[in-house]
Amino acid sequence: MKKYVVAILGATGAVGQRLISELEHSQIPVAKVKLLASKRSAGKKLTFNNQEVTVEEAQPDSFTGVDLVLSSAGGSVSKKLLPEAVKRGAVCVDNTSAFRMEEDVPLVIPGVNEQQLQYHHGIIANPNCSTIQMVAALYPVYQRWGIEQIIVSTYQAVSGAGQSAWNEMLQQAQAILNKQKPTANILPTAADVKHYPLAFNLLPQIDVFEDDGYTHEEWKMIHETKKILCNDQDSPKIKVTATCVRVPVEIGHGESVYFVVEDKGASVPEIQAEIAKTSGLILQDNPQQQLYPQPLTAAGKRETFVGRIRPDQENNGAFQMWVVADNLLKGAASNTVAIAECLVRDHLVQVPNNKA
Amino acid sequence: MKKYVVAILGATGAVGQRLISELEHSQIPVAKVKLLASKRSAGKKLTFNNQEVTVEEAQPDSFTGVDLVLSSAGGSVSKKLLPEAVKRGAVCVDNTSAFRMEEDVPLVIPGVNEQQLQYHHGIIANPNCSTIQMVAALYPVYQRWGIEQIIVSTYQAVSGAGQSAWNEMLQQAQAILNKQKPTANILPTAADVKHYPLAFNLLPQIDVFEDDGYTHEEWKMIHETKKILCNDQDSPKIKVTATCVRVPVEIGHGESVYFVVEDKGASVPEIQAEIAKTSGLILQDNPQQQLYPQPLTAAGKRETFVGRIRPDQENNGAFQMWVVADNLLKGAASNTVAIAECLVRDHLVQVPNNKA
Repeated sequence: MKKYVVAILGATGAVGQRLISELEHSQIPVAKVKLLASKRSAGKKLTFNNQEVTVEEAQPDSFTGVDLVLSSAGGSVSKKLLPEAVKRGAVCVDNTSAFRMEEDVPLVIPGVNEQQLQYHHGIIANPNCSTIQMVAALYPVYQRWGIEQIIVSTYQAVSGAGQSAWNEMLQQAQAILNKQKPTANILPTAADVKHYPLAFNLLPQIDVFEDDGYTHEEWKMIHETKKILCNDQDSPKIKVTATCVRVPVEIGHGESVYFVVEDKGASVPEIQAEIAKTSGLILQDNPQQQLYPQPLTAAGKRETFVGRIRPDQENNGAFQMWVVADNLLKGAASNTVAIAECLVRDHLVQVPNNKA
Repeated sequence: MKKYVVAILGATGAVGQRLISELEHSQIPVAKVKLLASKRSAGKKLTFNNQEVTVEEAQPDSFTGVDLVLSSAGGSVSKKLLPEAVKRGAVCVDNTSAFRMEEDVPLVIPGVNEQQLQYHHGIIANPNCSTIQMVAALYPVYQRWGIEQIIVSTYQAVSGAGQSAWNEMLQQAQAILNKQKPTANILPTAADVKHYPLAFNLLPQIDVFEDDGYTHEEWKMIHETKKILCNDQDSPKIKVTATCVRVPVEIGHGESVYFVVEDKGASVPEIQAEIAKTSGLILQDNPQQQLYPQPLTAAGKRETFVGRIRPDQENNGAFQMWVVADNLLKGAASNTVAIAECLVRDHLVQVPNNKA
């Protein structure tokens, strides 16, 4: 059985650490793991399968001899280094937004559109965390009844903004509990000019603003959803719009999803049944038992949790649901490793000759 | 000039304290203030206009000689005591849900439907906090272009669940920061069986569940909005649906509001202009300056803050906006006192003879 040399790019970050543990628990036969990060983190010791591994500085030649790259080091790092990795024959699964919308880069959620993997040119993109859990939860509905329209409002955890933003929010929370003024240097996004406290607050800005008044996070949810579900000309068009809000939660994005199905015959019990029988989804939907998804109970889990499914009483074919998933696992590391597992299973861990 | 004897029922609670200060700053000429609360709080000393006032136990005879009651002591207290107050000739503005949907009780947001006050029978209801700020923000849009449909997802602060829930959330936050397990005995609602931590979490349950899977909070937003905006048979019907989520914020509800106008000629700049010129609304809508409403900046203010107004690019006549207001002020005490000001101004502080 072939064993693979796997490089994890961005190994010391919140997602990187989860990539390591997800790889440990995966079906992928690993010959060797290389842990790559910025110069600042080089020399750190981490473990993989109880073996100590020293973190190396990520450079183009780091990828020589590597079969598979799992990448979560930021968009600019991916843009610079992944083409170098592909040149050296490595297939890359990228968790940043760098390549997601490029035409020859499959944007994949296993269980939804893994058939796209066969068309890869060396780079496969992992969708945005908030996109993954929404599309995963809606997919069984989409398959059976079709979907015309999605209106989503998100409640996104701070860990999606990286470890430093996460630490900042916890420091702000302690300051406020101590009746001190919180400071903000990172949130809502390091990429923008102004910074505001998130602890005990809500920030209706994730990523920078586009010219049309939507944030880039909202843009991602809209366009990634269309790329995943409406990839070919025959697919019906789905209207998608989004409002993305950062909330003072450590791990676990919440999403209030309003959706209109094509086939108006859908009912709540049938939607619940479709979700309950879908691998990777867990139905938590029993109002009388106060059972519904929560970030605190979803954190650390690979599944997507779905509840509060109910009809819009005045709009035939329209429903609402509440979706929660661990944004670092389902929204990032677990999906990335699941893509890599599909590549291994389907013998796709090679850069096509005509595409390198 | 007539001066009024005003009783504040529930004077020691989070809203009650704000009723006192809002009354101090109001246009209402106060002859005397009576502060009423449960037996447990009787004997406490509070101040009104720098004068010490001793809290008395609320009983039917407490209302003898009272002109105006401002009430925020909980639905069961209102149900029991307000009819007694009306019998004794007092006009009551009630901040609980006890009487809101009764046919002969006006449900009023000054600036929106204060003309309903003239039909009162002794009790006027203050709408639910989450309803007030949404309807206040949408009203200028409704007036100029009409509204067909509203889909709202709320992000509601814990102070709306009362002081004890608020304290519980802060204790939970400190426990989590200390790496201890948080305890929960009140949230999501003391009225239900199971309790979950809210700190660094999201609870998609506010109030108890109805049989149709909606929570009572969601039911309130739907039906109160219709009662306020579609009160008579000639009013066009508005479709309303809601998802209400409790978030770990102290003060200030956020709302992601999707709305479809009747007159498809509406544009974002025109909507912004209508909101900016409406008394009680403050437009905070400049993405390039990262200006948008936040709970931390809305707390302590009487106004409703509106931003992130943008079109649904794929649905003509549909728009989204982000609305934040102090749930204890605009959502409760300020609106209650504003109703009382209208009653005084319009000489309506009397129980109609044929209605008492």
